[in-house]
Amino acid sequence: MKRISVLLPLLLLFVAAFCQELRSPNGNFRMNFSVAGGGRPVYRLAFKGREVIKPSGLGLELKNDSFSLASGFVITDSARNTHDDTWTPVWGEVKQIRNHYNELAITLSQPASKRKMVIRFRAFDEGIGFRYEFPAQENLVYFIIKEEKTQFAMTGDHTAFWIPGDYDTQEYDYTTSRLSEIRGLQMKAITANVSQTSFSPTGVQTALMLKTDDGLYINLHEAALINYSCMHLNLDDKNLVFESWLTPDAKGDKGYIQAPSVSPWRTIIASDDARDVLASKMAYNLNEPSKITETSWIKPTKYVGVWWEMITGKSTWAYTDQFPSVILGATDYRNARPNGRHGATTANVKKYIDFAAKNGFDAVLVEGWNVGWEDWFGNMKEKVFDFITPYPDFDLPGLHAYAQSKHVKLIMHHETSGSPRNYERYLDTAFRLMKSNGYDAVKTGYVGNIIPAGENHYNQFMVNHYQYVIEKAAGYHIMVNGHEAVRPTGIARTYPNMIGNESARGTEYQAFGGSKPNHVTILPFTRLLGGPMDYTPGIFEMDLSKINPKNSSHVNSTLANQLALYVTMYSPLQMAADLPENYERFPDAFQFIKDVAVDWDDSKYMEAEPGKFITVARKAKGTENWFVGSVNGDSARISAIDFGFLTPDKKYTATVYADAPAAHYKTNPQAYVIKKIAVTSKTRIKQFCAPGGGYAISITRD
Amino acid sequence: MKRISVLLPLLLLFVAAFCQELRSPNGNFRMNFSVAGGGRPVYRLAFKGREVIKPSGLGLELKNDSFSLASGFVITDSARNTHDDTWTPVWGEVKQIRNHYNELAITLSQPASKRKMVIRFRAFDEGIGFRYEFPAQENLVYFIIKEEKTQFAMTGDHTAFWIPGDYDTQEYDYTTSRLSEIRGLQMKAITANVSQTSFSPTGVQTALMLKTDDGLYINLHEAALINYSCMHLNLDDKNLVFESWLTPDAKGDKGYIQAPSVSPWRTIIASDDARDVLASKMAYNLNEPSKITETSWIKPTKYVGVWWEMITGKSTWAYTDQFPSVILGATDYRNARPNGRHGATTANVKKYIDFAAKNGFDAVLVEGWNVGWEDWFGNMKEKVFDFITPYPDFDLPGLHAYAQSKHVKLIMHHETSGSPRNYERYLDTAFRLMKSNGYDAVKTGYVGNIIPAGENHYNQFMVNHYQYVIEKAAGYHIMVNGHEAVRPTGIARTYPNMIGNESARGTEYQAFGGSKPNHVTILPFTRLLGGPMDYTPGIFEMDLSKINPKNSSHVNSTLANQLALYVTMYSPLQMAADLPENYERFPDAFQFIKDVAVDWDDSKYMEAEPGKFITVARKAKGTENWFVGSVNGDSARISAIDFGFLTPDKKYTATVYADAPAAHYKTNPQAYVIKKIAVTSKTRIKQFCAPGGGYAISITRD
Repeated sequence: MKRISVLLPLLLLFVAAFCQELRSPNGNFRMNFSVAGGGRPVYRLAFKGREVIKPSGLGLELKNDSFSLASGFVITDSARNTHDDTWTPVWGEVKQIRNHYNELAITLSQPASKRKMVIRFRAFDEGIGFRYEFPAQENLVYFIIKEEKTQFAMTGDHTAFWIPGDYDTQEYDYTTSRLSEIRGLQMKAITANVSQTSFSPTGVQTALMLKTDDGLYINLHEAALINYSCMHLNLDDKNLVFESWLTPDAKGDKGYIQAPSVSPWRTIIASDDARDVLASKMAYNLNEPSKITETSWIKPTKYVGVWWEMITGKSTWAYTDQFPSVILGATDYRNARPNGRHGATTANVKKYIDFAAKNGFDAVLVEGWNVGWEDWFGNMKEKVFDFITPYPDFDLPGLHAYAQSKHVKLIMHHETSGSPRNYERYLDTAFRLMKSNGYDAVKTGYVGNIIPAGENHYNQFMVNHYQYVIEKAAGYHIMVNGHEAVRPTGIARTYPNMIGNESARGTEYQAFGGSKPNHVTILPFTRLLGGPMDYTPGIFEMDLSKINPKNSSHVNSTLANQLALYVTMYSPLQMAADLPENYERFPDAFQFIKDVAVDWDDSKYMEAEPGKFITVARKAKGTENWFVGSVNGDSARISAIDFGFLTPDKKYTATVYADAPAAHYKTNPQAYVIKKIAVTSKTRIKQFCAPGGGYAISITRD
Repeated sequence: MKRISVLLPLLLLFVAAFCQELRSPNGNFRMNFSVAGGGRPVYRLAFKGREVIKPSGLGLELKNDSFSLASGFVITDSARNTHDDTWTPVWGEVKQIRNHYNELAITLSQPASKRKMVIRFRAFDEGIGFRYEFPAQENLVYFIIKEEKTQFAMTGDHTAFWIPGDYDTQEYDYTTSRLSEIRGLQMKAITANVSQTSFSPTGVQTALMLKTDDGLYINLHEAALINYSCMHLNLDDKNLVFESWLTPDAKGDKGYIQAPSVSPWRTIIASDDARDVLASKMAYNLNEPSKITETSWIKPTKYVGVWWEMITGKSTWAYTDQFPSVILGATDYRNARPNGRHGATTANVKKYIDFAAKNGFDAVLVEGWNVGWEDWFGNMKEKVFDFITPYPDFDLPGLHAYAQSKHVKLIMHHETSGSPRNYERYLDTAFRLMKSNGYDAVKTGYVGNIIPAGENHYNQFMVNHYQYVIEKAAGYHIMVNGHEAVRPTGIARTYPNMIGNESARGTEYQAFGGSKPNHVTILPFTRLLGGPMDYTPGIFEMDLSKINPKNSSHVNSTLANQLALYVTMYSPLQMAADLPENYERFPDAFQFIKDVAVDWDDSKYMEAEPGKFITVARKAKGTENWFVGSVNGDSARISAIDFGFLTPDKKYTATVYADAPAAHYKTNPQAYVIKKIAVTSKTRIKQFCAPGGGYAISITRD
């Protein structure tokens, strides 16, 4: 007995040294870290006592190095910290964001190499984040990542909402399947895109949304992707273990690191209530505070654009059909024969400016304004655009004056054709041209394979390019909306001029064959967790042959669903994407788009199930008005709305824009009903949602 | 008989359609072009009736294309032209350059693909050039070069003066061997360099100098390398056929082409007199006239620099030894401990400025002035330098004022560490900083592997970068001296602000183990044919341990040889590379460097044999003064100087700086004699040249 009592404290000490626990502030999460056999760092995660992540390895394999950063470690230090403060985003779903976490920083030492690495864990109430830190040290200064070996071991054959792993595009429809089914469905999930590089039959992208059979919602993603390759996940579908799979460069290398530095955060959100996932601000909280101090020039924006008419094929970006190829500077546009279908003409842009001014929009996006579109991608051509030379029929200064007179802003478009060097060469000149013509925002594009060949849209080289553009733009007080760029990871907290990104399958695919009707019930669980998406909603005419007889694509959405997107797809940048004439056909429904806010003091996620439905209520910035949006998946359902979010004892009028009973995304998408009802915080109503439908509510204080 | 007389004209017609001949204006060269079996374009070349190039194939293989551009052709057109004019270079060996050639442009059509390609030949009196032209056409717009298949079939196992084929460095000593010996000597020829990528056991670089057993001198090179990959040559050493081998990108592709466009010229110089090769201006003549119209700011420059003290290891580029690695912006230099050996201190630069002013030099180059040198290559680190932040001990505006007061210019140094994106990002800011501080010239550097990984120093992507820098610099009225950049190909005619290049093994290697004593008797036959080299001659102290006890390297040259280099190694940019204190030890010899011109009205190549000796006389710009330089190879020899180049009936004084009888590059390099003699156009003298020696003569009109 004596002997045991001596040994027991020693044993506990031993365990303590090798196993560290971290709990979330609310106690729901319990993360355990230990160093397993061979000195491999291992963690596991539980939520309310249920296992979320089984013991999973951590670390990195290095290239041309005798040592790995995935084994041979001992714990030599650990430090704990608690953080709790509240910060005010420049724009957002809520007025203030609480950043509350418990932290555990484990210092790992590798005796054989005399190196050390820190793994820092932060446990929030909705999940955990962790990252690798490489402190300044003598024996680890520069290294090349061969593979990051971060594992996420699943507890079962969960349902996943996934898109195929791809180094060059995220523009896929989501597949909903068991983990074990991914391999079989992968090829089916890969649909044609301008530029795609898939890497594995079980590779998927983040944010990855999962649901366990016992009703746990899990989300895997990353935050603060800075100077590092974007992470994919590759599934070992025998053992159901995901492992990080970084985007390589032309040599297959995954990253060039100089210590001191840190990796992005790897994040795990989990809850038994799907709404908690949507409401999570963890990605932002894991990013640095804003580096832009004076932010008055960053403005949430509702806009229209010379865009959908090109997407549907009614108009063209190109000015002429005369040139089989273009050499900027040599090709003479002055005597070119216009094709008569060019969208970005002065007259047409004025029409959009008039429409914007009349209907209270802030801005007009114009694509196809600059020379080069006759010959703009697919050829490894480096100098496709110069970002400064307008077509002969686009009066840049004249339109500036006209827009100014109508109090409407113009939004610039910089399509790079995947040619970052050419874009960077023109960046200062192009930004200066913007500012001298009153443009405060730019939509960038990266269509096509990256030049130089071998680089990918999501590797470190390109991640650094996008970051360079964001920072450079900030210097000019320019807001950036990056299309085809790497998916956002909360960086907009640090650079709030990044007001939008595409980085997923947007509305344009409704004109390229259509997207799944439940697509928009998944995006907020995946793509939107890293930042807002320029989804470009608001399509009222679903039969695109009415716009362009050659376009047989159908928009898989009801009109009411399109209205709901302005609320469910949070973004400080919202487009009314359809043609003015289509809005003019439905002025009563269009009223919602005119009314809806783009910046919010509060957001309440009321109903949520990935792939099925999402209902959210948001309070418009600086007002007592609320807007509710609800999007529905493939099957009709009844949504139950509890107006408890309203201020008690106050009276409101709600205008409900809903699917008509006969509505259906495919057969009857324009069947909607609008009704006005008096509501208070005690009101409860039920609302029909058609397949691919939904509803939108505008609520004003009486 | 009747029948034959009918057939004969038809037969001649047939031959004419398939075989076209082009002669040089002087008739010495005869080029025959034909389309051989399978529609392969073939050419052959003869000089004075002797075969220079045996029938050799032409064309290109394309990637992912059903058709090749190397076969299946028929001749559908041919056009002839004669050109003869004279142009005035901004700087050069001669006052005016005659551009006289006969031209034959063959239009080849490929019936199967409905494509056409033009091969344009130009025959000059000293050789021929030809290039591929891809006219605008429907069926050939964009294509990727898989291989260029230009052949140069040798007539025998010639002697070659070659360096190993390499995508990343040209800084090799020359090997002199038979063609058949290249394979065996290749590995021996590859010596350690910071960045090298050799590609084949029989790969060599251009300009390649050759000599046949019957005394014919042949040179293979390229001209006007614009938007194309640099050409190497790969030897089929069984058949003694060289074939073009373009520098690939990360994917192994050799070039991305958009029609209409042209390839660089492939050039063949041949003569039975080696002096004709040296005097050739074909590379310039095959380039476009200057695109810079106002050129008064482009000035030939003689300079000293804070450089050799770092090269020899006496001083350092770095300011401190304290940082194992540097992160620009984060690393704090203000409190760093200086290492006490930093070369680019304000005080030391002032010393050089004083020395330059006192001795009539135009400028002072300063390397190591800007932060980052503690950690500057070898790590795929992209942001090594910012080109704008001086070290704490380098007073940028103060030195500007000081240099200005002494009427001395400062030369900027931009080392990129092989990181072109980072350089381009800073280019405008860096050039503006230069201009606001009185710098008119920049020495650029590309040490280390190119970032992004997989790109090479000489592929199309990088060729376009160097060109971008040259053109951008021209806009700022900045002269460029590019080190580690692609070898020049006569582009300085078009952009005369490119006043220098390294692109070969320069004097620095004399401090890194030494170069072969006959190196400088080969460079004018190879590297210099494309443009001037910043060879940085003028080393007076050959025992480098006297500068830095740890440096055991020996400069394999006599002091007289070093003086001769100012004349033999033509450049509008000439450095006196040694330390001021070494010049002060030999004021009589130093006088030649002070006197020698850097721009010329005329040049006479008097003696030449590659690997053995070169003697040239040049007439200083706008004067009646001449300078003669003679460099010698491994064995002592007697040079015969004929002063017939002088104006008849005029009297001159010649100061001869020559090897003393006991001089030897290894054992007695500083043994020189100086004598003054009266000379006229009738003077003939003989002059001893030691091994690795030579002489220099300064001739002034009495």
